[in-house]
Amino acid sequence: MTTTKELADRLDRLEARARKAEDWTDIANLQAAYGYYVDKGLWDKAADLFAKDGTLEIAGRGVYVGQDRVRAYLHQLPEYKDGVIFNHMQLQPVIHVDSEAGTAKGRWRTLMMVGFLEKEGRWGEATYENGYVRENGRWRIASLHGIINFYCEYDEGWHRGGVPLLRSTHGIEPDRPQSFEYEAHPKAVIAPFHYDEV
Amino acid sequence: MTTTKELADRLDRLEARARKAEDWTDIANLQAAYGYYVDKGLWDKAADLFAKDGTLEIAGRGVYVGQDRVRAYLHQLPEYKDGVIFNHMQLQPVIHVDSEAGTAKGRWRTLMMVGFLEKEGRWGEATYENGYVRENGRWRIASLHGIINFYCEYDEGWHRGGVPLLRSTHGIEPDRPQSFEYEAHPKAVIAPFHYDEV
Amino acid sequence: MTTTKELADRLDRLEARARKAEDWTDIANLQAAYGYYVDKGLWDKAADLFAKDGTLEIAGRGVYVGQDRVRAYLHQLPEYKDGVIFNHMQLQPVIHVDSEAGTAKGRWRTLMMVGFLEKEGRWGEATYENGYVRENGRWRIASLHGIINFYCEYDEGWHRGGVPLLRSTHGIEPDRPQSFEYEAHPKAVIAPFHYDEV
Repeated sequence: MTTTKELADRLDRLEARARKAEDWTDIANLQAAYGYYVDKGLWDKAADLFAKDGTLEIAGRGVYVGQDRVRAYLHQLPEYKDGVIFNHMQLQPVIHVDSEAGTAKGRWRTLMMVGFLEKEGRWGEATYENGYVRENGRWRIASLHGIINFYCEYDEGWHRGGVPLLRSTHGIEPDRPQSFEYEAHPKAVIAPFHYDEV
Repeated sequence: MTTTKELADRLDRLEARARKAEDWTDIANLQAAYGYYVDKGLWDKAADLFAKDGTLEIAGRGVYVGQDRVRAYLHQLPEYKDGVIFNHMQLQPVIHVDSEAGTAKGRWRTLMMVGFLEKEGRWGEATYENGYVRENGRWRIASLHGIINFYCEYDEGWHRGGVPLLRSTHGIEPDRPQSFEYEAHPKAVIAPFHYDEV
Repeated sequence: MTTTKELADRLDRLEARARKAEDWTDIANLQAAYGYYVDKGLWDKAADLFAKDGTLEIAGRGVYVGQDRVRAYLHQLPEYKDGVIFNHMQLQPVIHVDSEAGTAKGRWRTLMMVGFLEKEGRWGEATYENGYVRENGRWRIASLHGIINFYCEYDEGWHRGGVPLLRSTHGIEPDRPQSFEYEAHPKAVIAPFHYDEV
């Protein structure tokens, strides 16, 4: 006959399994939500998705440390208004969760459509290697690291070269130098992987 | 020693957790399946994914109420055949499930590629704010609401303006007026969010 | 009072449910990981994601049978280096898992950006109908079948026709003829569905 001890042990293992799948979906929701806020310049909403000591590093502009600094960085990005397209679609997650530790890693990519009416139209694509942490019972972004694969002029396409990385941050200086040195297309770049096995 | 009562209580909580993750994946499948049918003009297949009293509202053309009316709306869209591209990629879900109630909300986006050989080629992108309901044990679309962010001519790009919303529905009139007033790019538009927190 | 037998039965059913959601997320990770490797020409990494007797069939070039043959096929694809864009974004999964059998089916799509500096720039889009198998406790690709919906020149767009399927495989001949006869855009093509109901 099955003992209550055996059942309790099975429950322990099953809880871990169920939590891992739930964590995967929660983190997928979180990163997708970030993208919708970025699209529309909702910078405070986007910053709120970071952990208190979360970091942000995008396009070789250095590392911003802590939610307040991430917020400052985001606020120097373009304002969303008539004539602006600033789409950052969040796609193709590979998420590995350590449910017990309350931490996770995720590889994502963004396909970017950037436009300012009669001024500029660009395609872009980047890889993210992000960290996540469970904070007060909710998953938050512990580290967002975006590595640009290419930006190109819509009118030219990626086969006529790329737009060099724009490193200006309007006077909001990073807290640490960038962690990964690279140039985007036409230079080859492979964002580091957080996993060796899947 | 653990009692069977304690174990039963743990099982109750765990069942809710496991069901929520399963519901998330079922709804992700459902919306993705809708997209594959739309791509290829498989309108009856697409309509079958709606709840019996499901609603559809796209591009400010008003609300169609009930699966039969959704079906009628879908059938007036372009036929898929040689020379046609009608891709509606379903991307970036943020899904919140109330498993016990058998209801859910999901924010998605679609990247659209529309083309008619030698006639028209367009990019488009829209946000969905959808509702879902469990009906006879299967998740179905309770409400599909697509808000166009932009359409543009492939030959022009989004930085030279957008194609205005086309409101013609070939005589298939909506049952209710549109629920959200807006214009697409170059006007700024932010689709309402079903969530305040993630 | 609840008996341990009843609890054990509930646990059995719940385990199946939790495993199914976990399998969905594992397979989503697996296919996404494949895409990141393909982007960057990491062919050995990509081949390692196939089951020992896994198959690959892309763009009507015939079927390659077994991980070694898949590896040979992949290695004849373009080298990733300066000036090259070979993005194969993995999107929109519809995954159906038979957890007990350790098998699954998944429909996906890829949006492709292909470029060789000053030589060629193309958009493309394809549907995958793939099989998966649990092998030594890990999900692997049992069959990858990519059906091209369109390739087009970036400079032309899909509304001025498509690039015909390129069937050259640099002397690496398939083990079996292609399983599905079609031409891509401007011919209409609908990839077979592994599901009738969702």
